[in-house]
Amino acid sequence: MNDTPETPRSHGRLSIRASMRPRDLMEERHVRGAFDARVITLFPEAFPGTLGLSLTGKALDQGLWRLETLDLRGFGEGRHRNVDDTPAGGGAGMVLRPDVVDRALTAAMEGAGEARAAWPLVYLSPRGRPFDQATARRFAAGAGITMLCGRFEGVDQRVLDHWQIEEVSLGDFVMTGGEIAAQAVLDATVRLLPGVLGNAESAVEESFSDGLLEHPQYTRPALWQGHEIPPVLSSGNHGEIARWRRAEAEKITAERRPDLWETFRGRKGG
Amino acid sequence: MNDTPETPRSHGRLSIRASMRPRDLMEERHVRGAFDARVITLFPEAFPGTLGLSLTGKALDQGLWRLETLDLRGFGEGRHRNVDDTPAGGGAGMVLRPDVVDRALTAAMEGAGEARAAWPLVYLSPRGRPFDQATARRFAAGAGITMLCGRFEGVDQRVLDHWQIEEVSLGDFVMTGGEIAAQAVLDATVRLLPGVLGNAESAVEESFSDGLLEHPQYTRPALWQGHEIPPVLSSGNHGEIARWRRAEAEKITAERRPDLWETFRGRKGG
Repeated sequence: MNDTPETPRSHGRLSIRASMRPRDLMEERHVRGAFDARVITLFPEAFPGTLGLSLTGKALDQGLWRLETLDLRGFGEGRHRNVDDTPAGGGAGMVLRPDVVDRALTAAMEGAGEARAAWPLVYLSPRGRPFDQATARRFAAGAGITMLCGRFEGVDQRVLDHWQIEEVSLGDFVMTGGEIAAQAVLDATVRLLPGVLGNAESAVEESFSDGLLEHPQYTRPALWQGHEIPPVLSSGNHGEIARWRRAEAEKITAERRPDLWETFRGRKGG
Repeated sequence: MNDTPETPRSHGRLSIRASMRPRDLMEERHVRGAFDARVITLFPEAFPGTLGLSLTGKALDQGLWRLETLDLRGFGEGRHRNVDDTPAGGGAGMVLRPDVVDRALTAAMEGAGEARAAWPLVYLSPRGRPFDQATARRFAAGAGITMLCGRFEGVDQRVLDHWQIEEVSLGDFVMTGGEIAAQAVLDATVRLLPGVLGNAESAVEESFSDGLLEHPQYTRPALWQGHEIPPVLSSGNHGEIARWRRAEAEKITAERRPDLWETFRGRKGG
């Protein structure tokens, strides 16, 4: 945790252009429908990172979505811009202060509207609900999203309760911070926004939606290291190919993910 | 998919310094014990990305781990360095060719030794086994790891079978590629390497290991927006504080993650 006494207070908001704009520009932006992502982080230089490349980067350049970072340090306390303190009751690590996080959240939710359904407020934490494709669809259906990236031991519970933050987990593992998790969530969300994927990729997405793992894929060369492509795929019989792929998808799901297989079978039976 | 006909073939290996080094240097490196991460990707510029910041970045600078990228494009076919082709049997998207991926894997596993347990070969895919803390510990215990980042519809199954690649999933959601997933896996793995975390953070890690979600945390100010820190945390009674935290951790796990709670209860009873 570097102290940066030379940082003026305004720096925490400099990167959020939204708060600099008059309200009517904000309105215009919503009319235009660009998805607005705002990320509160101690490492604004981590963004856009990988999100600036490939399909998500192209979409960012085209204005199909926007990304704004708020430097949490700029909302810190006192001359040293402290953002954290020791845990009440003792213990290892440092906890982000409620007053500091509150100021950052207030700035990050400016112009976001009251309805959380249309603009979720998310804290990335292993204590959250596991992120999945249904959550990505819900996020992509909104006008925007605000994400708080944690560091250290966590965030004071009072500010999480006060803002009724939705805690989202990338999985049952521990990371050094929430930045990569935020990028994963944004990647999965942004690719579902209208116009981001080409027609070819859009169709691919559908195949995940049925609750099964993907069937195996093959391409040229037809013979590689003595291994042929399964003959059915060269048959030209589209019905046979579809049946084979479905059977493979069911087999691999049952083998690898009994949990998904149970859910799939339950839905089919219901 | 950009064609880059001007890219000479050697470019695919330029970034992997390991293959340029004589074997004795490789040996010396292993004696020194630095964890070796090699990533095959169409977007080498995505790395180190966020991994170059904070604790993982500091550890990278200190040589506690190494990161090498291999540009898959450089292993492509013909003048246009094609890496993919249409799926056999038809369908949307493009599939990475087995011969191209095989060449990249051969380069990326050079000097990695025969024992996969000591140097896992991982393909990041939603069809894989969900990544978790136990997997992070297993990866961190090895000498290195090679990761293949997918793009498009997937990778030809024959090359996955041939190399007996371990498929690992970040979760039940679809991303535009494997790069952010690789960064998430590397972040969770690298932070477990000796010397990467300070003593304070190391202790924090232990608290996740018991299979429960974390208890809530609080810090200064003691009174914020009319909300006090739970009085027990200011009692100075360490036994009481430990019991309160344990009860809160159990309560939140039972509420939010019945699946983890079942596992925890089962282990306790067994």
